[in-house]
Amino acid sequence: MALVVMKFGGSSVADADKMRLVASKIASKKKSGNKIVAVVSAPGDTTDDLLKMAEKISPNPPAREMDVLLSTGEMMSIALLAMALDAMGESVISLTGPQAGIFADLQHRQAKIKKIIPHKIHKLLNKNHIVIIAGFQASNANGDITTLGRGGSDLTAVALAAALKADACEIYSDVEGVFTTDPRIVKEARKMDYLSYNEMLEMACSGAQVLQSRSVEVAKKFNVMINARGTFSDDAGTIIASEEMIKKLSGRKKMEAMIVSGITFDKDQVKFTIVDLPDTPGVAARIFNDLAKINVNVDMIIQSAAVDKKNDISFTVVESDMKKTQIELDKIASEFNATRVECDDQVAKVSVVGVGMRTNPGVAAMAFEILAKSGVNIEMISTSDIKISCVIDEVDTMKAVEALHKGFKLSKSHKA
Amino acid sequence: MALVVMKFGGSSVADADKMRLVASKIASKKKSGNKIVAVVSAPGDTTDDLLKMAEKISPNPPAREMDVLLSTGEMMSIALLAMALDAMGESVISLTGPQAGIFADLQHRQAKIKKIIPHKIHKLLNKNHIVIIAGFQASNANGDITTLGRGGSDLTAVALAAALKADACEIYSDVEGVFTTDPRIVKEARKMDYLSYNEMLEMACSGAQVLQSRSVEVAKKFNVMINARGTFSDDAGTIIASEEMIKKLSGRKKMEAMIVSGITFDKDQVKFTIVDLPDTPGVAARIFNDLAKINVNVDMIIQSAAVDKKNDISFTVVESDMKKTQIELDKIASEFNATRVECDDQVAKVSVVGVGMRTNPGVAAMAFEILAKSGVNIEMISTSDIKISCVIDEVDTMKAVEALHKGFKLSKSHKA
Repeated sequence: MALVVMKFGGSSVADADKMRLVASKIASKKKSGNKIVAVVSAPGDTTDDLLKMAEKISPNPPAREMDVLLSTGEMMSIALLAMALDAMGESVISLTGPQAGIFADLQHRQAKIKKIIPHKIHKLLNKNHIVIIAGFQASNANGDITTLGRGGSDLTAVALAAALKADACEIYSDVEGVFTTDPRIVKEARKMDYLSYNEMLEMACSGAQVLQSRSVEVAKKFNVMINARGTFSDDAGTIIASEEMIKKLSGRKKMEAMIVSGITFDKDQVKFTIVDLPDTPGVAARIFNDLAKINVNVDMIIQSAAVDKKNDISFTVVESDMKKTQIELDKIASEFNATRVECDDQVAKVSVVGVGMRTNPGVAAMAFEILAKSGVNIEMISTSDIKISCVIDEVDTMKAVEALHKGFKLSKSHKA
Repeated sequence: MALVVMKFGGSSVADADKMRLVASKIASKKKSGNKIVAVVSAPGDTTDDLLKMAEKISPNPPAREMDVLLSTGEMMSIALLAMALDAMGESVISLTGPQAGIFADLQHRQAKIKKIIPHKIHKLLNKNHIVIIAGFQASNANGDITTLGRGGSDLTAVALAAALKADACEIYSDVEGVFTTDPRIVKEARKMDYLSYNEMLEMACSGAQVLQSRSVEVAKKFNVMINARGTFSDDAGTIIASEEMIKKLSGRKKMEAMIVSGITFDKDQVKFTIVDLPDTPGVAARIFNDLAKINVNVDMIIQSAAVDKKNDISFTVVESDMKKTQIELDKIASEFNATRVECDDQVAKVSVVGVGMRTNPGVAAMAFEILAKSGVNIEMISTSDIKISCVIDEVDTMKAVEALHKGFKLSKSHKA
């Protein structure tokens, strides 16, 4: 008897009808002879509604209390989904994150899972119950409720699959799997059958919203094979696994066959430039230390060559960090007598991802050429062994994505 | 430094403005040098909204899962109220029922509090925090979430006041206290300054909706003095305490001075009559045992004198139990060859309550006379040592209440 973890996102449980559909999917998988643990997010816009309620009360609510408030969304889902399964005659029980034995660190809003004590889940599964577990939430050493940050339900599902040694971890959402690029933007985007952890990580970090990146990191660490698939579709979805496993599953040297797997983009980017900083050691370290202290996550960094013992430093952050970055940089610029701080929120990041790059030199050059031919100017570049990212003007985003998708032959018509 | 338990009902925290008003009331009581534990209900119509969500999913949802769902309402309240207090600069922390150490029995929807382990609350109070606690909810020996039934937040407040040995237990709602009768119906209704536990119990059980009767029982058992008062008023409200305490507080023989304290009414009544039952021992026992088995709470019972070895039995139940009572009685009637079962949901119960009745014979006679003079026909009567209840035609309710209120001199103009 296989143990399957099934995770359903908020749009999959947005109303009573969808809830019933999800329940019937779970019931049918149970009937096929599996033990089922189902993880659910808050229904539809519930989390946003709760955030709005808090906004009306306080401009800066304490994180601990936000977690109490936000955790109610997933509690609604588990109770309602359990009711739907019960109405179908299934034996079912719901557990909140704390009840399920999910323990996190002392942070709020972005807690990290420390350990899972799955005794209760195993006990309920052995009594033949379907176990429904609230995603996104845990308890900490103080007995407080914590939440795991946006997309945290993916993390709950993967961490549970690891802790329970599940045979499968299925992540259901309103898209059918992972695509070569966003299918809402590029009609020719193709669903991928397989994707390695590293590729999925690079794609998640550069704008693809199918899976939360922390959940992919955990999957990689504990070798949990993820099946990302559509709630409202019977397509087999995308398997995310180790490169070795994919070679085994796909029955051919798939990983080498594809040089580039996907193109992602992210418009949620702001570029800052501090002009005329003194070219002395420690200046850059000081800037990025100060930003780290106020929890600003810096993405790409470029330092210009020094001229007259002065140079410029440019970097990107996400738009929600724009204000506090600006305030911090103004302080630093005045301290170091920099000429000025420039800020540009009309930029986007496009990325080309694929493990095949490792063994195929020239992918970066090809990407730059494709962009140049399309008249897209590159403002910043950063690369890893399986990813090339370029910061460009935001208005050029779609043009760049389409050109790269076509140039690297990722369209449906090119499917091997 | 006094320890005060303040409880706020759902209508007191229905929106952000009201939430802030409640927060300012709590903050000001804290600033006067008190330790504060605040108990809150779910905001406004939240509980009803949650019930409707469940209805859409299942006609008969499991009670355990209903409790998970319903408990989210109070969790929203504690988080939002804590945010409001934090925004006012107060040091505050919220606790769910389970976090607060409130343990109940294994029932769902109507759980009974078994014990309260208040270590955590004391610890937080000693750190000078205002402690906000979710009413209506607890956890049981299985680690499940349970709820205490409608009005359960009153019970939470009183039980906490007892467990914490609080100096005061203030129950805030949208009415200013306990009135001689419903002030929405009788303009001349007068707020009472003092009321004994027993009178409050009789009033709560016969239709007054200020306090849930179980909470009054617990208050009486542990001698917790309750101050029922208005959230949106500065009136001192009503003190509910033992007769001895009231004598002490009111500084005169108040209890003897008032023969009758209040008039209540309850339209949520259905009268059943089984006609021509055999007049043999055990028939009544059988009927009311069978009804108890299906959780029907029978209120008044009348058995007619036997004629030809047959008699009739009449009794009242609340309207929500009407259907299942009808089904059960049809079975019983056919088994005992009764002529028929009559059902009348156009009845109401009016009650006259007052500890002064004990030492003033003739109150019942006076009540009957007042009703007779007003042309109100009495269908059933039941009495306790401090209460007289009459079942009458529902259309006569207001006429009866007004006549009794006036007849027993309870109007504002009669205040001693």
